Amino acid sequence: MKTQAAVAWQAGAPLTIETVDLAGPREGEVLVELKATGICHTDYYTLSGADPEGLFPAILGHEGAGVVVDVGPGVKSLKKGDHVIPLYTPECRECKFCLSQKTNLCQAIRSTQGRGLMPDGTSRFSIDGTPILHYMGTSTFSNYTVVPEIALAKIRDDAPFDTVCYIGCGVTTGLGAVIFTAKVEAGANVVVFGLGGIGLNVIQGAKLVGAGKIIGVDVNPAREAMARKYGMTDFINPNEVDNVVDAIIQLTDGGADYSFECIGNVDTMRQALECSHKGWGQSIIIGVAAAGEEIRTRPFQLVTGRVWKGSAFGGARGRTDVPKIVDWYMENRISIDDMITHRLTLDQINDGFDLMKRGESIRSVVVY
Amino acid sequence: MKTQAAVAWQAGAPLTIETVDLAGPREGEVLVELKATGICHTDYYTLSGADPEGLFPAILGHEGAGVVVDVGPGVKSLKKGDHVIPLYTPECRECKFCLSQKTNLCQAIRSTQGRGLMPDGTSRFSIDGTPILHYMGTSTFSNYTVVPEIALAKIRDDAPFDTVCYIGCGVTTGLGAVIFTAKVEAGANVVVFGLGGIGLNVIQGAKLVGAGKIIGVDVNPAREAMARKYGMTDFINPNEVDNVVDAIIQLTDGGADYSFECIGNVDTMRQALECSHKGWGQSIIIGVAAAGEEIRTRPFQLVTGRVWKGSAFGGARGRTDVPKIVDWYMENRISIDDMITHRLTLDQINDGFDLMKRGESIRSVVVY
Repeated sequence: MKTQAAVAWQAGAPLTIETVDLAGPREGEVLVELKATGICHTDYYTLSGADPEGLFPAILGHEGAGVVVDVGPGVKSLKKGDHVIPLYTPECRECKFCLSQKTNLCQAIRSTQGRGLMPDGTSRFSIDGTPILHYMGTSTFSNYTVVPEIALAKIRDDAPFDTVCYIGCGVTTGLGAVIFTAKVEAGANVVVFGLGGIGLNVIQGAKLVGAGKIIGVDVNPAREAMARKYGMTDFINPNEVDNVVDAIIQLTDGGADYSFECIGNVDTMRQALECSHKGWGQSIIIGVAAAGEEIRTRPFQLVTGRVWKGSAFGGARGRTDVPKIVDWYMENRISIDDMITHRLTLDQINDGFDLMKRGESIRSVVVY
Repeated sequence: MKTQAAVAWQAGAPLTIETVDLAGPREGEVLVELKATGICHTDYYTLSGADPEGLFPAILGHEGAGVVVDVGPGVKSLKKGDHVIPLYTPECRECKFCLSQKTNLCQAIRSTQGRGLMPDGTSRFSIDGTPILHYMGTSTFSNYTVVPEIALAKIRDDAPFDTVCYIGCGVTTGLGAVIFTAKVEAGANVVVFGLGGIGLNVIQGAKLVGAGKIIGVDVNPAREAMARKYGMTDFINPNEVDNVVDAIIQLTDGGADYSFECIGNVDTMRQALECSHKGWGQSIIIGVAAAGEEIRTRPFQLVTGRVWKGSAFGGARGRTDVPKIVDWYMENRISIDDMITHRLTLDQINDGFDLMKRGESIRSVVVY
């Protein structure tokens, strides 16, 4: 079949909208008609060329929602008409990682996914016979895409695509880091470094679980109001205090119970660790640092009880937890609507990247 | 009263045996007659002058066992004749840290202890009216010492002092890191960097909880035999493999479930983290690094599920857990006897330091 898709031909160049050939789903694969997709910083990171693992030409996009159109042989858990969210972190429920019950990092199709290919080692996308690579196993910047069954979360039919697509990455990454990775308990003091989309979702996760103080840290004062709306109780602008670590320690009577780094800066990662409470403070890295950069601290920080960890896709098991988060949204336990600041057509996708680069959007969504 | 004690007059100088004046126990304090004390690397670290927080003149020693001789006003949990192990990490059961149930790092008397003083801000030790400082709240290099009630673990009367004194630091530090900090589960693969006394106790802790592979890493092949006796299943000499991290990952089919750094070297701390399993590996720093040194790694190591933490006094709550460990020793569930390689009189204490410096002892114990 043919599909309209935004193709990334090379690093640094704008996407171009193309009519792409899409082969049908093979064994264990599913054809999905995407109804909406968010534009995430990770797409931008790859398109910019900064990602050493970026491959071209490819169809980017990993934050989508849509409807099953067809299923390949052997697909049992999904059928035509099902509403789904593609998962860049699959959940096979059979690999060592899934069975460990200690991580969401399913490795079943990791090597082919990393090479821009389906599990059988080939691509479903092509133009004039030349293969175009998949991206993060999802390629949601295409009206139609093919995804492995294990990389699709089945969601309820009444959820609007143009908001729940954000659960495919940003919402789950922030909310999940609080709920699944850190397991923040009611009353705990939480600090969030960086009040972009991920930070806002950490904040609403902290509010959801009944955290005590929810302290936001950002150099941009314009972000304070929105963060307070999602549950932030205190705001610290690092440019307005002598030492952000000391300021947090004072505000929390000894340090944060949990801190979350949502920027991707190794210096704020250190601050996030060192502002956490002696004896039990946990600091969770969410942001992605530039290639080759290193975090550092004195080991004394850990020996005196702080814990340094990280979170990918919020520690969420995609097929198990993503449908729950969609339910929470539909039950108004979490908010997404106000975070979707721009809706675009596929033709306007480069505008969405520009809005993000200029810091003018929380999330731009392409609606097909 | 008078007591014989080894006094550290200044950094770098040998201890001298002195007759020291010891004031009786005040409110909440206990007079203890020590029967034995280990000589630990931390005593050496302070005596060497490398510890920036070292204070002189002082009576060092923090790994003792003895008998209560007298109690001050208000002491309720101990009486004359009780057998005790002094605790450099006390357990008040009333401070924010104790009540958190998340840490063993009781802070009730931390500031005075750090200044070499009893909780009322004075010293009980003096010579000709000149105060001699306490050390780690214990000062076990003295035949008699005064210790706060909250810094004494009451132990069973039939436990031999010249072995259980080692539970006052080394045994608990290693064993506890496995049992209380990491909570290693049966079948888990464990890696131990450094096969000195702490490493041996990590190994026997791992064996006690039913760990799977117990891999020891040490550049000294002479340490292999003893470590195997305590439960080590595999030995890696970093000088005999291309890359110790890769060797461990191969031996464990992906990485260690838990790794323990018992050396105090920031490079091996990094190796210990990076040899732990993607998705869930936990690396626990036990060793004390030199002042000012920093650990470092790429944040990707944490974002992909590894956890970096530390352990002090094995995460053990002194009054609660130390008596249990004494029981385990008396029930032959753990071994200590072979680790006590030298018994000395107080007069020979400098010989004990020399043995340690030359790497010729696991643990030297002064028997009073």
